[in-house]
Amino acid sequence: MEKAPDHTPLSFRKIGVIRTPYKWKAPRQPVEEGECFLEIYPEFAEGLKALDTFRYIYVLFWLDRIGDFSLEAEPPWAGGVKVGVFASRSPRRPNPIGLSVVRLLSVEDNIVKTSSIDAIDGTPLLDIKPYVKYLDSKEDANLGWAEDLPDKEHLLLHLKGIPHNY
Amino acid sequence: MEKAPDHTPLSFRKIGVIRTPYKWKAPRQPVEEGECFLEIYPEFAEGLKALDTFRYIYVLFWLDRIGDFSLEAEPPWAGGVKVGVFASRSPRRPNPIGLSVVRLLSVEDNIVKTSSIDAIDGTPLLDIKPYVKYLDSKEDANLGWAEDLPDKEHLLLHLKGIPHNY
Repeated sequence: MEKAPDHTPLSFRKIGVIRTPYKWKAPRQPVEEGECFLEIYPEFAEGLKALDTFRYIYVLFWLDRIGDFSLEAEPPWAGGVKVGVFASRSPRRPNPIGLSVVRLLSVEDNIVKTSSIDAIDGTPLLDIKPYVKYLDSKEDANLGWAEDLPDKEHLLLHLKGIPHNY
Repeated sequence: MEKAPDHTPLSFRKIGVIRTPYKWKAPRQPVEEGECFLEIYPEFAEGLKALDTFRYIYVLFWLDRIGDFSLEAEPPWAGGVKVGVFASRSPRRPNPIGLSVVRLLSVEDNIVKTSSIDAIDGTPLLDIKPYVKYLDSKEDANLGWAEDLPDKEHLLLHLKGIPHNY
């Protein structure tokens, strides 16, 4: 352990903006339907070369509408379960970095078209990374604390983006 | 598009430190064998509650030993192929954020034990997120530009962390 925590701020830059249909409130997780756009600043557009060969990408963004963080999270559709923020995808994190896996639809000049992203229109973009099958797809992954929920099936409908009316 | 790129720096904080056996040079990708430790600053330890219910987690870290970024990357073991930085996992990115999916082994107080992480010892930790099967595991993902490499099998040995001597 270090002798004392180091609180020096780290500095990041905006590489572009996310354009979504969500003006005030975003969905809780990405859904496969719908289209969103990553507008990369032209000065970084060269970095997109060959991105269009990937089926999925990671989008990292700055959750700029979030206030203070909370170490405790109460995930939606989980019947009031309380978990630590690092065991949740809550946006109210010590570093408000959003991470979504989305389908890549096309790349044209500095514009990347993707499936729906759970971000509000105008959200600052931090990074794009390729989602690589053998690094990132873990078929034996689990649902963590959600495995034991009495209403797990309902949560799964949300996670999978399946429309339902209860 | 916004009228002009916004270059205001964004500010992040260190939430702890990654402890790995790699003092000078880290492996290019996580490997399942080996152990690493995430030392969370005690002030954030409460945020780890229920993390130990997950089999895999995302670790986000600040690549603090990296110099200037490059928009072009030449991935290792790829026979000299040149792609855009956003189509690669190169650390020399406009925002040097590392992202690895690792196996969670245990959580004790403020220490998270994981499988090997491709980070140098002492790397600043930015965030931990649960890897949730139905959000993050994409079984139809591909290898992007690597699909067409003449020596794809060799690259796969590296991606899968399989020891070999050629």
